[in-house]
Amino acid sequence: MVLNVVIVGASGYSGVELIRILLQHPNVTIRHLFIHTQEQEKLDELYPHFRSFINIPIRSVSQLADEKIAELKETSELVFLATPSGVSKDLAPKFLNAGFKVIDLSGDFRLKDPVLYEEWYKKDAAEPRFLERSVYGLSEVFPNQIKEGCFIANPGCYATSILLALAPFYRRQIPIRSVIIDAKSGVSGAGRGLSRNTHFSEVNDNFKVYKVGKHQHIPEIEQVLTKLSGKKETVQMMTHLLPITRGILSTIYLDLEDRMTDEIVAQLYREDYQNQPFIRIRPQGEYPETKQVYGSNFCDIGYYVDQRTGRVILFSAIDNLMKGAAGQAVQNLNLMMGWDQTLGLTQIPIYP
Amino acid sequence: MVLNVVIVGASGYSGVELIRILLQHPNVTIRHLFIHTQEQEKLDELYPHFRSFINIPIRSVSQLADEKIAELKETSELVFLATPSGVSKDLAPKFLNAGFKVIDLSGDFRLKDPVLYEEWYKKDAAEPRFLERSVYGLSEVFPNQIKEGCFIANPGCYATSILLALAPFYRRQIPIRSVIIDAKSGVSGAGRGLSRNTHFSEVNDNFKVYKVGKHQHIPEIEQVLTKLSGKKETVQMMTHLLPITRGILSTIYLDLEDRMTDEIVAQLYREDYQNQPFIRIRPQGEYPETKQVYGSNFCDIGYYVDQRTGRVILFSAIDNLMKGAAGQAVQNLNLMMGWDQTLGLTQIPIYP
Amino acid sequence: MVLNVVIVGASGYSGVELIRILLQHPNVTIRHLFIHTQEQEKLDELYPHFRSFINIPIRSVSQLADEKIAELKETSELVFLATPSGVSKDLAPKFLNAGFKVIDLSGDFRLKDPVLYEEWYKKDAAEPRFLERSVYGLSEVFPNQIKEGCFIANPGCYATSILLALAPFYRRQIPIRSVIIDAKSGVSGAGRGLSRNTHFSEVNDNFKVYKVGKHQHIPEIEQVLTKLSGKKETVQMMTHLLPITRGILSTIYLDLEDRMTDEIVAQLYREDYQNQPFIRIRPQGEYPETKQVYGSNFCDIGYYVDQRTGRVILFSAIDNLMKGAAGQAVQNLNLMMGWDQTLGLTQIPIYP
Amino acid sequence: MVLNVVIVGASGYSGVELIRILLQHPNVTIRHLFIHTQEQEKLDELYPHFRSFINIPIRSVSQLADEKIAELKETSELVFLATPSGVSKDLAPKFLNAGFKVIDLSGDFRLKDPVLYEEWYKKDAAEPRFLERSVYGLSEVFPNQIKEGCFIANPGCYATSILLALAPFYRRQIPIRSVIIDAKSGVSGAGRGLSRNTHFSEVNDNFKVYKVGKHQHIPEIEQVLTKLSGKKETVQMMTHLLPITRGILSTIYLDLEDRMTDEIVAQLYREDYQNQPFIRIRPQGEYPETKQVYGSNFCDIGYYVDQRTGRVILFSAIDNLMKGAAGQAVQNLNLMMGWDQTLGLTQIPIYP
Repeated sequence: MVLNVVIVGASGYSGVELIRILLQHPNVTIRHLFIHTQEQEKLDELYPHFRSFINIPIRSVSQLADEKIAELKETSELVFLATPSGVSKDLAPKFLNAGFKVIDLSGDFRLKDPVLYEEWYKKDAAEPRFLERSVYGLSEVFPNQIKEGCFIANPGCYATSILLALAPFYRRQIPIRSVIIDAKSGVSGAGRGLSRNTHFSEVNDNFKVYKVGKHQHIPEIEQVLTKLSGKKETVQMMTHLLPITRGILSTIYLDLEDRMTDEIVAQLYREDYQNQPFIRIRPQGEYPETKQVYGSNFCDIGYYVDQRTGRVILFSAIDNLMKGAAGQAVQNLNLMMGWDQTLGLTQIPIYP
Repeated sequence: MVLNVVIVGASGYSGVELIRILLQHPNVTIRHLFIHTQEQEKLDELYPHFRSFINIPIRSVSQLADEKIAELKETSELVFLATPSGVSKDLAPKFLNAGFKVIDLSGDFRLKDPVLYEEWYKKDAAEPRFLERSVYGLSEVFPNQIKEGCFIANPGCYATSILLALAPFYRRQIPIRSVIIDAKSGVSGAGRGLSRNTHFSEVNDNFKVYKVGKHQHIPEIEQVLTKLSGKKETVQMMTHLLPITRGILSTIYLDLEDRMTDEIVAQLYREDYQNQPFIRIRPQGEYPETKQVYGSNFCDIGYYVDQRTGRVILFSAIDNLMKGAAGQAVQNLNLMMGWDQTLGLTQIPIYP
Repeated sequence: MVLNVVIVGASGYSGVELIRILLQHPNVTIRHLFIHTQEQEKLDELYPHFRSFINIPIRSVSQLADEKIAELKETSELVFLATPSGVSKDLAPKFLNAGFKVIDLSGDFRLKDPVLYEEWYKKDAAEPRFLERSVYGLSEVFPNQIKEGCFIANPGCYATSILLALAPFYRRQIPIRSVIIDAKSGVSGAGRGLSRNTHFSEVNDNFKVYKVGKHQHIPEIEQVLTKLSGKKETVQMMTHLLPITRGILSTIYLDLEDRMTDEIVAQLYREDYQNQPFIRIRPQGEYPETKQVYGSNFCDIGYYVDQRTGRVILFSAIDNLMKGAAGQAVQNLNLMMGWDQTLGLTQIPIYP
Repeated sequence: MVLNVVIVGASGYSGVELIRILLQHPNVTIRHLFIHTQEQEKLDELYPHFRSFINIPIRSVSQLADEKIAELKETSELVFLATPSGVSKDLAPKFLNAGFKVIDLSGDFRLKDPVLYEEWYKKDAAEPRFLERSVYGLSEVFPNQIKEGCFIANPGCYATSILLALAPFYRRQIPIRSVIIDAKSGVSGAGRGLSRNTHFSEVNDNFKVYKVGKHQHIPEIEQVLTKLSGKKETVQMMTHLLPITRGILSTIYLDLEDRMTDEIVAQLYREDYQNQPFIRIRPQGEYPETKQVYGSNFCDIGYYVDQRTGRVILFSAIDNLMKGAAGQAVQNLNLMMGWDQTLGLTQIPIYP
């Protein structure tokens, strides 16, 4: 069986990564590509690394009037929105209304509370009835909802790396005094849009903190932890910019009410993830590195119980464009379609 | 059908890249791994990016006595030698004598003239009768010899990027006044061995020339060009070290006796390579970048005919660990076995 | 004695580097700073690395009407234009007319032939009478003209690195069959303006050629070589983008009519440069690296006479923001003012 | 007045940085250089970036017998030991006994408790009577002891960046519930010695945690905080490896018993540091970046009081080879000698 899909926002980095995956997905055919600013006629003129792989014309998002979407529906069933926050808000309802399944990679449908969205995104929120319909696509944590969903809000990159490490603690309501998350991301997470923060000479051989106290993944993480534990959760998260292209490593400091041993932590993870193909819990004493998941859909998790301080410290690494965006989107596609969740996602990390 | 293979030198970067490819090759099973210095018992302890992919024990090269090799032959048919120059020299004959097919990634069997080898490698040459038996594995240029061979000397990384760009000119005996090759490579080409030249703080945010006048790929390139044109060829080649992990870009300046047009250059390449799946000739005005072949087996070639100077300038990009080493080795395996040459090698470049 | 200076274009990378130098120059006081787009009120808000060093307000270039310039003249004598090509063209004449000494870091006054300027820059050329008044500020090659000048066209970064290596050959009219220049530059040479070519994710861990056949330093180099040799000179130059912030390394291949020895090359350089404090000719067998001149005003030159091919190969490294822009501008200031040319320029390269 | 100094360990990165500073220090002459492994005869053969700056022969540390040290004392007064931990332990006493003033950049004399040293360094501790004589050289925190000392244990790089940010809180005994330090360092901190952890291909475009729970700066930080607050202090610190050459950024999370405002934090820092030339407290809302202190002796500190969580979060950036090693060593020299503490240390950060 072949599923025909549309990709909107095909020229951003998440869109390009989606295409890389889907071109090798056995059950999917990419039928239509839409981009925001039409610089070229074909994708491989814009991204020559695709030469010999793809020959589909790219069209402008501005063409996506309702009739056009209805017409697309004749040949396609599902749309990936790799569009920025603020754009998906309007596009997703149109596609849903036309009968499409929708996987949205933006932040527009992740926060269920429109007030929270407007506070953190500084933009108008999506309509509540669409916010309600969306399923938060953290694949390993909400697989059943995803399987039954037809509208996925694909999680944020930081949120994915952090929630996968924390979920086993929160869903068991292990009493936690405080959680501090020190997260570091490569530059591709900021996308292809130009800015001083992504200008080579400002980033290379440099390291900095950014969006201090303002990162929109903070309420996203808190919403999910609250859902898992059943009580209002607050986290401390700080985001830093690494002079690398891909990769997020989050170091998470947990102050627990009761001490834990290494073995208990290992046990928690084993229980939750041992059948999860994309989560690799590292053996005690071995810690993840961003390069070790480069180009793959893995989330590598390490842990350390500090005997001196009693804290449990977690380390979680993902490729922000794969498990943090396009990879998880395809994993969610596989879940929705009832396919093996690894279809199209068996890439081995490229190292070195 | 499944071919069982042995990899010797499994812990070097070429070996690791071979394993990455072969783990996803439909017709190959890796049966045995040997490494030089046994630091760990399993490959994924040494290279955790392989966790969940491979569970084969690694053994020491020192175990490879003749009896052991004979024993390996009972379960395997082909060996990849990803060993350093000076080591393959002795290992390849042992495996050949035991009936193995051999693909050697070192420089030991590339130069047919032992005197030349000793001059450039400053080591003892392999035995002449084995030098004679080896086939130079430049896949697109010598496919027939490779198909009939059972002992492949896999080309050097610089040599591959340069020869693929130059072959159409030399095999047609187009009169060339001079050729100057300015080549630049990422650091992984120097392997996993530690040296000041590969020490992060000495390379990062730095750029330099190295092995001035001494690079052992110079005689390799000259030997092949001489073979193609039928007359003694000499090239000027300079090698530079880029602060990147993977990738070679060679800029080649050709002074021709007679002027050429862009169209003629395009035509030459079309004739030679249009059915070659791993060579992508870029349209006029578009030039290759190393990142556009990252993690893939492509050789991307661009050209520019300078109207002001009359020179033809060629640009050739490869991933030095793929097309420059392990990728081409697998391509040669496919050719030798009579398989489709793209088996296991359809990775799309990872960009960005 | 203290010279009061104005800097226009203070927020670009060359402007910022000028300020770094001049803040520690014993004879200079920075009196006024102008920038193009006024984002902040003070320079250290825009560039916090200057905190505790500078407290001068920054004003908009748009204020630079004739009266304003006349007013500036009351407190200042010299202006550095670190403005883009196309802007200096109009500003320099205004400042000259007001009686300022002018050092222009743009390309607007380097090419004496306005037709050539318009062909390569795709912009309107400056008025011929101002083109005639400008002195090409290649400090070690034209020191006398610079000393007598009051309007300096500061050389391009590539041109500086290449011309310093070539001048001894051309001014002696050594017969040269051909010269091929393969130049590589760090990203800061492209300035602070945003573009896809300087977007971190497109440059990091990547390497590419750019402006193929179109780089505006080609006619600049040819103009100077022609002036030195007394006959029309043509060069082949190709420019590449390195994933580093600062530094240019040019590899130059000279085909001479008559063979040269290493000793003769060394002798040429010794004759021309032995009293030049910013040119370091490397001993035979040692080659320059960009990091070895990082943050300094040096031009490091190495050479290699290839016995196999007869070619003389030159290697020249500079920090593009120092000797390739602001450093040489200050060196020219020192020459113009009759000061020791090293004033303010004794920074030791930062390594590693 | 001129002070003649000896540098032992001149070829390591801290040694090389010391030389860069001291060559431009108005009151110091470098008289003798000793290195561990004698590869070259002169320093500029080993480090060509010093060409034209230094011409002193380098000798082997193995020559440093007692008589030799006594002989050195005839022409020199002070020695910098830029030797590794385990080496300084034996060398410092010899130099002290010969009447030298000693500034030791290793970790051998930082921990006053030899048991703690042996636990964290896994080496034999120095003799207790020399441990007692050493003064911990955190320049801004212990200036009086340093001024009176003749034997300085120069602080560790991480410790410096962290303690300067924390000292105002601890010396005032502000009640702190917990402190978590997430520190990130460039690779030069690991020195010039070769290891897999500093091999370019393993570090470039990668990010990882290292020495989890084992970093020897943990007890150093605790010792100083304990001394400042008067009660036993414990910290959580995690060290990460950035793919950059220079720079440390530490993000520090403080849980205070009582809430603080931004203004109070600013006030603390103002009180302690407003006359300190090398500490730059950033205005509210502006945060330090490693590149903004590159090549300079600054410690840049930013702060953020999180209204949501009540935590005070501190950001501290230094150049690990400058303020984290050689720069602070020279600052301590200046203090010891009664000179202006900025002598030789007025370098402006190099940006970009």
